[in-house]
Amino acid sequence: MPIITAFKNAPDKGAGLARDMRVRWALEEVGQRYDVRLLTFAELKQAPHLSLQPFGQIPSFEDGDIALFETGAIVLHIAQHHPGLLPETPPERAKALSWMFAALSTIEPPILERETAKFFEADKDWQAEHFALIDARITTRLTQLAAALGDAPWLVGIFSAADILMVHTLSRLGSSGRLENHPSLVTYIARAKSRPAYQRAFAAQYEVFASLSN
Amino acid sequence: MPIITAFKNAPDKGAGLARDMRVRWALEEVGQRYDVRLLTFAELKQAPHLSLQPFGQIPSFEDGDIALFETGAIVLHIAQHHPGLLPETPPERAKALSWMFAALSTIEPPILERETAKFFEADKDWQAEHFALIDARITTRLTQLAAALGDAPWLVGIFSAADILMVHTLSRLGSSGRLENHPSLVTYIARAKSRPAYQRAFAAQYEVFASLSN
Repeated sequence: MPIITAFKNAPDKGAGLARDMRVRWALEEVGQRYDVRLLTFAELKQAPHLSLQPFGQIPSFEDGDIALFETGAIVLHIAQHHPGLLPETPPERAKALSWMFAALSTIEPPILERETAKFFEADKDWQAEHFALIDARITTRLTQLAAALGDAPWLVGIFSAADILMVHTLSRLGSSGRLENHPSLVTYIARAKSRPAYQRAFAAQYEVFASLSN
Repeated sequence: MPIITAFKNAPDKGAGLARDMRVRWALEEVGQRYDVRLLTFAELKQAPHLSLQPFGQIPSFEDGDIALFETGAIVLHIAQHHPGLLPETPPERAKALSWMFAALSTIEPPILERETAKFFEADKDWQAEHFALIDARITTRLTQLAAALGDAPWLVGIFSAADILMVHTLSRLGSSGRLENHPSLVTYIARAKSRPAYQRAFAAQYEVFASLSN
């Protein structure tokens, strides 16, 4: 059974924002059971974990002699080794692969920059001005994404690995207000999160937080 | 023959920073000839190109009924369809896939943030303070990357698609001074750029600029 790593004490208190959610969700979608090794913040930065994840982050993924890090790589590996998370035809699979990278390389960076500004520039008198610059970049990307999605339920025909990465990336916008002018994206996120596999993944990661609190 | 898109008038004046370099380099490594369609900045934002690249960027890649965007997806597609850019064994291939995503999801974001700050925050009196925050993040990532690379010539045994993405991403640090304390990374970049395939790719994209100037 594959083993993933996750935070022992997730900074989001089990709200589903930690990146192990993407991997849990993919595994639930394909019906693959998995084990979880929980790590403290100190353990993340120590040798045993760094040999699996050179940047001291979660998640990592091990399955026999295969080990991966980076959620994009892990979700793609799962999708390539189980049916259900990639379209059947080569043109559609190419499109899904493009959207997987787009989620992480084009949509996620300005969203993460906003998180960085929120937490690490809180004491700067220029934080608001920086937020405005970042938010303009986010709005550009969301407008382009909404145009590409159009009225379709998913990015590429069927629900795919690309939707897992995209929806989880967009989730980080949470209460930022950035999604307000993009109702089709709000619907898209809600549609994805109503999937039973998402619900099971969410419950499993929330359980880690809940059992800590008891 | 595949067709890629590139800038008709590259902002870097043919210095190899535009992202078509990654795709040209991969195609040269596997010995695949290709055509290039050059686009003006206005054409990038218009319907024909947006149907290939929803974010109005270069490059895109077309090969028969296959179309991709995002350099990570394109380089991975090339590596999966030609021998030479991925290791042979499943464990090593998984590691290469992880490093491809790491280049784009973990290493590139703070480097691009630095570019953004350089060009779009030049009139802000807080630019220097922001640079310091970004540079600390870049240094953390470069230190982790250098530790993972160690004395190895390449990220995963043989030269691979992961090295193409990583080296091109690091190249953007150019004259920033950020690489000065990481001599093994400077050597790694030089080793990659001395490859004949890189040289051919560089010459081909420089030729676009040179012929414009004539």
